[in-house]
Amino acid sequence: MIDVNEAHQIVLDCAGKLAAVQVDLVDGLGCILADDIVSYDDIPPFDNSAMDGFAVRSVDTANASEKEPVGLRILGDEPAGQISEHTVEQGTTVRIMTGAKMIDGADAVVQVEYTDLDRNKEGRQEKQVKENGFVQIYRPVKVSENVRFSGEDIKRGETVLKSGMEIGPAEVGVLASLGYSKVTVIRPVKVSIITTGDELVGIDQPLEPGKIRNSNAFSLFAQVLQARAIPIQSDITIDTKEALVEKVTENLTEADVIITTGGVSVGDYDVVKDVMASLGAELKFWCVKQKPGKPLAFWVFKNKLVFGLPGNPVATMVCFEEYVRPALRKMMGHQRLFRPSVKGFVVEGARKKPGRLHFLRVAVEKRDNMYYASTTGPQGSGILKSMVTANGLALIPAEVTVLKPDEPVELHLIDMPEDH
Amino acid sequence: MIDVNEAHQIVLDCAGKLAAVQVDLVDGLGCILADDIVSYDDIPPFDNSAMDGFAVRSVDTANASEKEPVGLRILGDEPAGQISEHTVEQGTTVRIMTGAKMIDGADAVVQVEYTDLDRNKEGRQEKQVKENGFVQIYRPVKVSENVRFSGEDIKRGETVLKSGMEIGPAEVGVLASLGYSKVTVIRPVKVSIITTGDELVGIDQPLEPGKIRNSNAFSLFAQVLQARAIPIQSDITIDTKEALVEKVTENLTEADVIITTGGVSVGDYDVVKDVMASLGAELKFWCVKQKPGKPLAFWVFKNKLVFGLPGNPVATMVCFEEYVRPALRKMMGHQRLFRPSVKGFVVEGARKKPGRLHFLRVAVEKRDNMYYASTTGPQGSGILKSMVTANGLALIPAEVTVLKPDEPVELHLIDMPEDH
Repeated sequence: MIDVNEAHQIVLDCAGKLAAVQVDLVDGLGCILADDIVSYDDIPPFDNSAMDGFAVRSVDTANASEKEPVGLRILGDEPAGQISEHTVEQGTTVRIMTGAKMIDGADAVVQVEYTDLDRNKEGRQEKQVKENGFVQIYRPVKVSENVRFSGEDIKRGETVLKSGMEIGPAEVGVLASLGYSKVTVIRPVKVSIITTGDELVGIDQPLEPGKIRNSNAFSLFAQVLQARAIPIQSDITIDTKEALVEKVTENLTEADVIITTGGVSVGDYDVVKDVMASLGAELKFWCVKQKPGKPLAFWVFKNKLVFGLPGNPVATMVCFEEYVRPALRKMMGHQRLFRPSVKGFVVEGARKKPGRLHFLRVAVEKRDNMYYASTTGPQGSGILKSMVTANGLALIPAEVTVLKPDEPVELHLIDMPEDH
Repeated sequence: MIDVNEAHQIVLDCAGKLAAVQVDLVDGLGCILADDIVSYDDIPPFDNSAMDGFAVRSVDTANASEKEPVGLRILGDEPAGQISEHTVEQGTTVRIMTGAKMIDGADAVVQVEYTDLDRNKEGRQEKQVKENGFVQIYRPVKVSENVRFSGEDIKRGETVLKSGMEIGPAEVGVLASLGYSKVTVIRPVKVSIITTGDELVGIDQPLEPGKIRNSNAFSLFAQVLQARAIPIQSDITIDTKEALVEKVTENLTEADVIITTGGVSVGDYDVVKDVMASLGAELKFWCVKQKPGKPLAFWVFKNKLVFGLPGNPVATMVCFEEYVRPALRKMMGHQRLFRPSVKGFVVEGARKKPGRLHFLRVAVEKRDNMYYASTTGPQGSGILKSMVTANGLALIPAEVTVLKPDEPVELHLIDMPEDH
């Protein structure tokens, strides 16, 4: 029996980063970049207008005012996406749209709102733009005003995104603007879920005497999905050694990680330990000084991780959260592996026997910059309901027997994104 | 031009909850429950053992100790999932596994660790269980010790989950244990994304002069996915009224929400406003006192929401985050619509013209229980890179012209889950 910190460390030491794989850009969302991303272009690729308005020589507008506007002759009308043939010279201008390439000779843009074309800001301009007609400018502009310069966002050759970054919507946008329709990321972990137990029936089966429904298969499937890994669901496996050997062997070809539930206690029918031993898997530990989840077992087999989670629904979920999820994140290249950990108070206090760290399921509330945790009903490891309203785990250290309401303990905030 | 709060309120007032739909249990992950969930069974459905050990009459163990163990005759061996034919009477016991139905006549379970079958806790028991053999018990147990009672977790007829709850892994587990293989949830929003602009080319196209790559289509796709809605991606739409009318009409049959980008400024070629007007959509507002995103437009058309986002990449992302995402969440039945909002300091301070609220892209750090925000590089609305490292938006109020580093402002923490 080892302690919680030691068990955590062993698991993380065994979890190595997976290989990189190329995927379509949007499929990379939530994944970790495997390579630095360099720009092959200046972004924006050309000087362009930041506004709808008129491209001008700023010097021509120096004396413009509301009372004495400056009239400029309109050479043409430039939508975005076109190349103008005009050159702005003294006393002239070209109408220009947001995003359109700047006009030769012009060094600034006057917003349409400061011209006689659009004095009614809520509607459309009243006056039509006529070639060789005139526009009245009501304000001076400075050199470069309302111009977006080539390379202003990103310079050619610049490393824009670093390997190891998580791809969120902004990174997707940047990659798209750089022309990356594919992206190389650390591939998602494939996780096989094998639930054992003669007492289990499928969720749409009637409950015969002595049977319970296989909820672990579903809660684990959801936890794996939520960790952005790929769950591989197996059928219910009966508690025979032969069936389990076959299932594990079959799943090892495809999966990077195998999670079993049940079959790790000291019962005669708990076969997972026997099966893993007979396959030649290396047992890293079995039994951790914790509650729930004491019989947690962990093996490495052919570079794959095998977690033997206890069969109790709460123990299964807590062990996934505390051990499996950080390991999956490390394998997928994440730098932040752990949920926020804060100091806070358990409002009811707690009493327990010494020897094992207890993970209490708690609802954490923040008041006046302090965290207060209330236990979410009975804490039996079969009582899955206690997980429903829990947004945290309170860690009552192994040696503590009485925790007073004013003694701070560590809280893991399990509905917040990882921050370290 | 309306102010930011008014615009928010109009959008949320127009966003109604969508209809319920029945889905497979695991597909309900992240969705909102449409109905209360009632249990048709007691969970667990029968009294069972919480441990591997021996089912006993507690009174028989009253005098057991390490020095003077009590010997009980073993009537049989009970794995989980089976129904025992035995009845425990004075001086007898039945070996029982975790999860197995309690044995008639027994009122407690002695863990195997406190018997002579398992003195070596790291390994397997040395001694074999023999029917009519004896087991030595080293500790007394109290009535009910290590027994999980029928209905201990959930009672038959009890409302276990309330409509309006978000389905996480624990809820999935509870629903599975109750036999719900299908679940009724508010259906995910379908969001059509239509990007407009003659200057746009596909991301795998070369950049011809005057063209830029269509990054908005991708960043929005990712933002919609991240909001757990269903994005419907359209091809790039050119800036003609006919093409856009066709595209919007086509998408309205399938989508609940349409997002357009570009085409909402005052430029002659900004056709989205004309198209929506010609279709008969009700314009709720156009132009908001904010930067970026001033030309934001919003319509309701045949009970569908249409967001006309500006074409600038940062403005598009910020408007999605601030307006579209809360609306999508409201439509999907979420009660928490908004990211955490905290007071904090902009370390560089800020200067701006009065009249519009500015959303600065900032990296927020927490030190000594205070939030400090640093702007993430140049804040031009074309500069998407400023979104990459941003985990927050700092809201500089419309009337403020100079913000000092020690003046607190509102920060929206955009990488945290919604909390209100």
